[in-house]
Amino acid sequence: MDQYVPCVERLIEQFHKLPGIGRKSAVRMAFYILGVKNETAEAFANAILEAKQKIHRCSVCGDLTDGDKCRICQDPKRDHGVICVVSDPKDAAAIERTREYKGVYHVLHGVINPITRVGPDDIAIRELLDRLGEGVREVILATDPDAPGETTAMYIARLVKPFGIKVTRLAYGMSMGSHLEFTDELTLNKALEDRKSF
Amino acid sequence: MDQYVPCVERLIEQFHKLPGIGRKSAVRMAFYILGVKNETAEAFANAILEAKQKIHRCSVCGDLTDGDKCRICQDPKRDHGVICVVSDPKDAAAIERTREYKGVYHVLHGVINPITRVGPDDIAIRELLDRLGEGVREVILATDPDAPGETTAMYIARLVKPFGIKVTRLAYGMSMGSHLEFTDELTLNKALEDRKSF
Repeated sequence: MDQYVPCVERLIEQFHKLPGIGRKSAVRMAFYILGVKNETAEAFANAILEAKQKIHRCSVCGDLTDGDKCRICQDPKRDHGVICVVSDPKDAAAIERTREYKGVYHVLHGVINPITRVGPDDIAIRELLDRLGEGVREVILATDPDAPGETTAMYIARLVKPFGIKVTRLAYGMSMGSHLEFTDELTLNKALEDRKSF
Repeated sequence: MDQYVPCVERLIEQFHKLPGIGRKSAVRMAFYILGVKNETAEAFANAILEAKQKIHRCSVCGDLTDGDKCRICQDPKRDHGVICVVSDPKDAAAIERTREYKGVYHVLHGVINPITRVGPDDIAIRELLDRLGEGVREVILATDPDAPGETTAMYIARLVKPFGIKVTRLAYGMSMGSHLEFTDELTLNKALEDRKSF
């Protein structure tokens, strides 16, 4: 595979490591970099270094931020009595896109998964429990609706309930705009179970 | 769109600029970078900077190299009497993958295209003509079989012929493993025109 000169090969390899990028796309990207102005390439390299340098976890919720606390934890207009628990910063961002949620977040940075050997102590569950003193009324569990996500949600629910705090999870059901015909059985089953009266 | 902290947004923007990468993939890539070890991210940034720093055009053929001359131009086993003219380093790499071609290359770095305002002086045609003294027997024109590629090939053919050098172009026809039924009319037409006797 060593078709290109070593430093081009190294660049291709780096792009190849990115999620969803095959060898051919990596080659295209490497040649894009070789084709742009030096300043453009430097801006790219610096963006990587700067982001790695500046970004760390919010001291309260664990979301990624460049300050001590993230924008949401700092915001007095948000309802700090409702904590939405997600496994990943991208999930918090997805909920933010709805522009409806007014509470705060807690980012676990992972889910409990025996296959990948991630246990409860490897994700930010302890940090969540430490937050439950300060007038928290509700914990919304918003992990993915798959086996590790469900396991994690159930595990956390059991720990939070003794605090006398309401524990909820996101609704499962059909996607908006989807077709009943093409909805998988598990989802349809959940949609039936959780049916609501008009 | 400014959902993430500024330096994460900047990183997303950089990935978004890569060919074929939409916003969602760029977000995924940025979070991949934020999730890897510092050394891994630094290796990525350095690969970009190193490639930009070291890579330049071969003084003979214009292909990308980290030395003065590229590996092919330096190789005494290659036939320096046959020059294959391509528009882009990636095209030379594609021909190298056949492992059949034993001649050398000339990389134009572009094609003549009135729409993008690229004229004959903007690509390495002069450099090609300068190489034609030294015992060159054949120039193979291997630009893409589209309008700008054809124009460029014809333009170069007219300039090379007066040197008394054989000028050829790649064969046009059906792709190996393709189906006649799904072959476009232009290609089929070329395949008929250029038919060969058994």
